[in-house]
Amino acid sequence: MDKERLLSAIAEDLKKIEAALGAVQASQVPFINEVSHYILFAGGKRLRPLLTVLCARLCGYEDEQIYRLSVLFEYLHAATLLHDDVVDGAEFRRGRKAAHNLWGNQATILVGDYLYARALRIAVEEGNFDILKVVTQTTLLMSEGEVLQLLNCDNTGLTEKEYEDVIFRKTAALISAACECGGIMAGVSDKEREALREFGRHLGLAFQITDDLLDYLGVSEETGKDIGTDFKEGKVTLPLLYTLNQASESDRTRLLSLLRDTEPSRETFREAVEIINHYRGFEYTRQRAEVEVEKALSHLFLFSQNPTRDLLENLTRYILVRRK
Amino acid sequence: MDKERLLSAIAEDLKKIEAALGAVQASQVPFINEVSHYILFAGGKRLRPLLTVLCARLCGYEDEQIYRLSVLFEYLHAATLLHDDVVDGAEFRRGRKAAHNLWGNQATILVGDYLYARALRIAVEEGNFDILKVVTQTTLLMSEGEVLQLLNCDNTGLTEKEYEDVIFRKTAALISAACECGGIMAGVSDKEREALREFGRHLGLAFQITDDLLDYLGVSEETGKDIGTDFKEGKVTLPLLYTLNQASESDRTRLLSLLRDTEPSRETFREAVEIINHYRGFEYTRQRAEVEVEKALSHLFLFSQNPTRDLLENLTRYILVRRK
Repeated sequence: MDKERLLSAIAEDLKKIEAALGAVQASQVPFINEVSHYILFAGGKRLRPLLTVLCARLCGYEDEQIYRLSVLFEYLHAATLLHDDVVDGAEFRRGRKAAHNLWGNQATILVGDYLYARALRIAVEEGNFDILKVVTQTTLLMSEGEVLQLLNCDNTGLTEKEYEDVIFRKTAALISAACECGGIMAGVSDKEREALREFGRHLGLAFQITDDLLDYLGVSEETGKDIGTDFKEGKVTLPLLYTLNQASESDRTRLLSLLRDTEPSRETFREAVEIINHYRGFEYTRQRAEVEVEKALSHLFLFSQNPTRDLLENLTRYILVRRK
Repeated sequence: MDKERLLSAIAEDLKKIEAALGAVQASQVPFINEVSHYILFAGGKRLRPLLTVLCARLCGYEDEQIYRLSVLFEYLHAATLLHDDVVDGAEFRRGRKAAHNLWGNQATILVGDYLYARALRIAVEEGNFDILKVVTQTTLLMSEGEVLQLLNCDNTGLTEKEYEDVIFRKTAALISAACECGGIMAGVSDKEREALREFGRHLGLAFQITDDLLDYLGVSEETGKDIGTDFKEGKVTLPLLYTLNQASESDRTRLLSLLRDTEPSRETFREAVEIINHYRGFEYTRQRAEVEVEKALSHLFLFSQNPTRDLLENLTRYILVRRK
């Protein structure tokens, strides 16, 4: 299934998700709505709510109220984006100025808190304790993941296992929860819930690994982000991690000195990309993403084949070829 | 009841609240526990959990599990303190270095998120939807209050009504929720729930108004905070607000120029205190706090007299005479 066919297959759901996002009760404070709108309607892919909707449908749940629930995952995601903006000091997000550059760190932190509170409120309104347990467990994991990422920021001795643990908490846990909650709404068995959770977890890992790859190999106009940001910030992700473990002593030393360049130029980054390329660090990273996609699909295949499963399968494979 | 008798009457409850705080599941990330411990065990008064315990008891609920629930309000409070630290850029908190000065803004924001997630998790574990509704509604109000406070920071045209709205959201909403949830645990009627909610709301308003007064008239060694911080930051609270509305044109102009002094000295603050004193701004503020205390008590008196009600009454009156 090519990109156009995939997009057309999900167009109707995306429209309903946008409508549900717009229908969430607004704040009495206009400024909060202004910042929320900026971050919520900044061209997000809506991957998380879409997964909730599709996983629920995969399990036979067709009620339209799924859209209302699904947007809580977009709210949680937006809340973490706002806090990330402040923590990373990023200049751009999705090709537009990062929120903290427009409204300052203070407002950005506080509106993040608001979006987070609003997400929990949506979960409470659903009135399902299993959903609430998954969501609150996920927010704990996510905040731990963010802290771990901060602590590991310039840890060049990070193991692949530690890297995976951080990206699980930071990214995959929420995607996994979005999938599992679709199943909960459909009232599936524990076994099916676990399959959806694992499907989402591996999909989320593949998603983040690809993101880390795009930070090296993407095209700025397509990703809407600066390229090389992770490297310039000294953030150790899989391409670099793998190369540091494989490289000769002299290449490793050179790579570390490039990483620690306090004023990295385009040339610094280009040389680092060359070294990583030499050790096939990007190839290895792509393979790791492929492995996660295959694992994700193996859990999906526990469900009987139908158009929704086909769509989820295509969506999962698309993770690997996406350019943003 | 003097301070010593009051403290001895609540000593047993405070001990059990400390134990419950210590028994909350720790994070797998040691650093998070370190920062959490610093903010949670920094000599807080435990007012919020104590109110939950006492309000539950007032309504006949004696089960020890109330302590486990009660600490969620301390967690929520601690989460807001961490984000406040970053937003205000405060140097000290409770006589110790503010968290962001020890661990940086980034970690402080993220551990705040963790504490917030942990609080919600405690609420979910209780398994009571009424509690969850109150708690999530409160977190929405609180985040709105923080944003409003930021937006109003140097708004010298603030009305008393707007001031009250901000301090309700920022402080009183959580105290009100702590009281109401005590009643919910006891399974009281809607009417009693409302009485507890209103009791907590007025007590919370009195508490914050007194806090704003102590920022002018407190003694640094007793409050553990810098004195005059609000004024130096240009924050408009009731003593100033009232005086700006009462003062002659020339005193008003002078007060505004002192407030806008970008490098305020001890002398700047002293002169402002003098002007506020002249217009009885502190007296008026104290009276407003007294009115809130009386309103709080009027709701408390809906319950039949017993030792717990006496204790709550004394605790409420103590708000006015506290020095920190």
